[in-house]
Amino acid sequence: GSAMAAWARAVRGLLLDVSGVLYDSGDGGGVPIAGSVEAVSRIKASGLKLRFCTNETQATREEFVKKLRGLGFDISVAEVTAPAPAACRILKERNLRPHLLVHNDLVPEFAGIDKTNPNCVVIGDAAENFTYANLNEAFRVLIGMEKPVLISLGRGRYYKETDGLKLDVGAYMKALEYACDIEAEVVGKPAQMFFESALAEMGVPAQQAIMIGDDIVNDVGGAQRCGMRALQVRTGKYRPCDENHPHVKPDAYVNNLAEAVDVILQQL
Amino acid sequence: GSAMAAWARAVRGLLLDVSGVLYDSGDGGGVPIAGSVEAVSRIKASGLKLRFCTNETQATREEFVKKLRGLGFDISVAEVTAPAPAACRILKERNLRPHLLVHNDLVPEFAGIDKTNPNCVVIGDAAENFTYANLNEAFRVLIGMEKPVLISLGRGRYYKETDGLKLDVGAYMKALEYACDIEAEVVGKPAQMFFESALAEMGVPAQQAIMIGDDIVNDVGGAQRCGMRALQVRTGKYRPCDENHPHVKPDAYVNNLAEAVDVILQQL
Repeated sequence: GSAMAAWARAVRGLLLDVSGVLYDSGDGGGVPIAGSVEAVSRIKASGLKLRFCTNETQATREEFVKKLRGLGFDISVAEVTAPAPAACRILKERNLRPHLLVHNDLVPEFAGIDKTNPNCVVIGDAAENFTYANLNEAFRVLIGMEKPVLISLGRGRYYKETDGLKLDVGAYMKALEYACDIEAEVVGKPAQMFFESALAEMGVPAQQAIMIGDDIVNDVGGAQRCGMRALQVRTGKYRPCDENHPHVKPDAYVNNLAEAVDVILQQL
Repeated sequence: GSAMAAWARAVRGLLLDVSGVLYDSGDGGGVPIAGSVEAVSRIKASGLKLRFCTNETQATREEFVKKLRGLGFDISVAEVTAPAPAACRILKERNLRPHLLVHNDLVPEFAGIDKTNPNCVVIGDAAENFTYANLNEAFRVLIGMEKPVLISLGRGRYYKETDGLKLDVGAYMKALEYACDIEAEVVGKPAQMFFESALAEMGVPAQQAIMIGDDIVNDVGGAQRCGMRALQVRTGKYRPCDENHPHVKPDAYVNNLAEAVDVILQQL
């Protein structure tokens, strides 16, 4: 705790990753991580600004928030920064018409987007929609373009559900990148623009914000590259070997979100 | 033709890729490429040594040869160099027990291999077996190892079937490599050891052998790195942009296998 004091005293806003920090996802909606429901309430009571910064793309923000409220969390749609709305802004700006390889439950986020005669592919965590047929179809759309455009809602390697680890969107993104010899444009963490919109939505500069996540690269590394401090929790997908990561070192480790909030609120 | 004369006169053996050179694969077994059945017969009548060098891993060599004989080709199992037997040699040498992510019809090639308590993953062109569940399972086997070992039966990006382009094993290999932060060991083209065993089986040195394939990287580039000459046919997965490949330049282009054999036999 004392090592954090110098910079933690300046904090005005927190960005929280959701899966692996607030709850462990899985069949039946998942389970809250012990102490996290109370930790969110304590942040709100403290007067700190708060933003939920998630790469989850298996549902609309509305459904996502409904699930978390059902688990007891004080959270609203307006507090969530998520990749699909960020992707929609890019699609509109650049007149892109997507072929979607995403989870069925995410499709409503793209309701206002022209999807006829696609000139790009948007890939999210499609889960059961990652079939051999659907991957071949997305590949054919890309390889048929003169200059293939692949927009990926994140670059996560894998995540933990209650029934075990699952490959995340980044793995399938890599498959399509390799097959087409292209590089995807990543929306969501760790993209700098994604963290910057979360900060703008909070109205807090990077130097006064702390990111709390379970993903050493996409949460911690991404936030630090934007000038934020970042804590890694030892819940969710955290693995002990993360503490020897060759490139990324969190500003501090905490056992879980509850401990992070203890430590941060002590400094105020 | 005249540009080839200098080195083609020394030729004593030919290595033929199969899919996209002899035939286009697809539902119902595929269709022969015009002139290829006769071209194989002419090679055999010429006295040149001949080796079929394939990365196909959707069937045992026995089934593969049966299919090609059904299409009219003069081919036997003893003339085929394929990745699965090469992988089996490696598994035995290193006491590796594989978890198989391969096509159902390839499984008999691994009949003599201990598959209990896996300590590596072998990935082939699993086609319909590339399901979300099977990919997660292979991933979990790998990520559970202290030092994950992934053996890939090829690194092809995609191939053409009669109903369109399909993602090849290389794309799924990349997905697992990225998720586990590892590098696969590739058996099959373009691995040097694979070409070298084909040459040894023919008893012809690289300098007197010509590879004929439709894949600019895995056939042409791989064979050239072993000291062979290599021709690219304009059939199968060939695309006009291959002729501007930044790293690989075939020793000559031919429209198809029949033309390659015309040109080569003229030099003898």
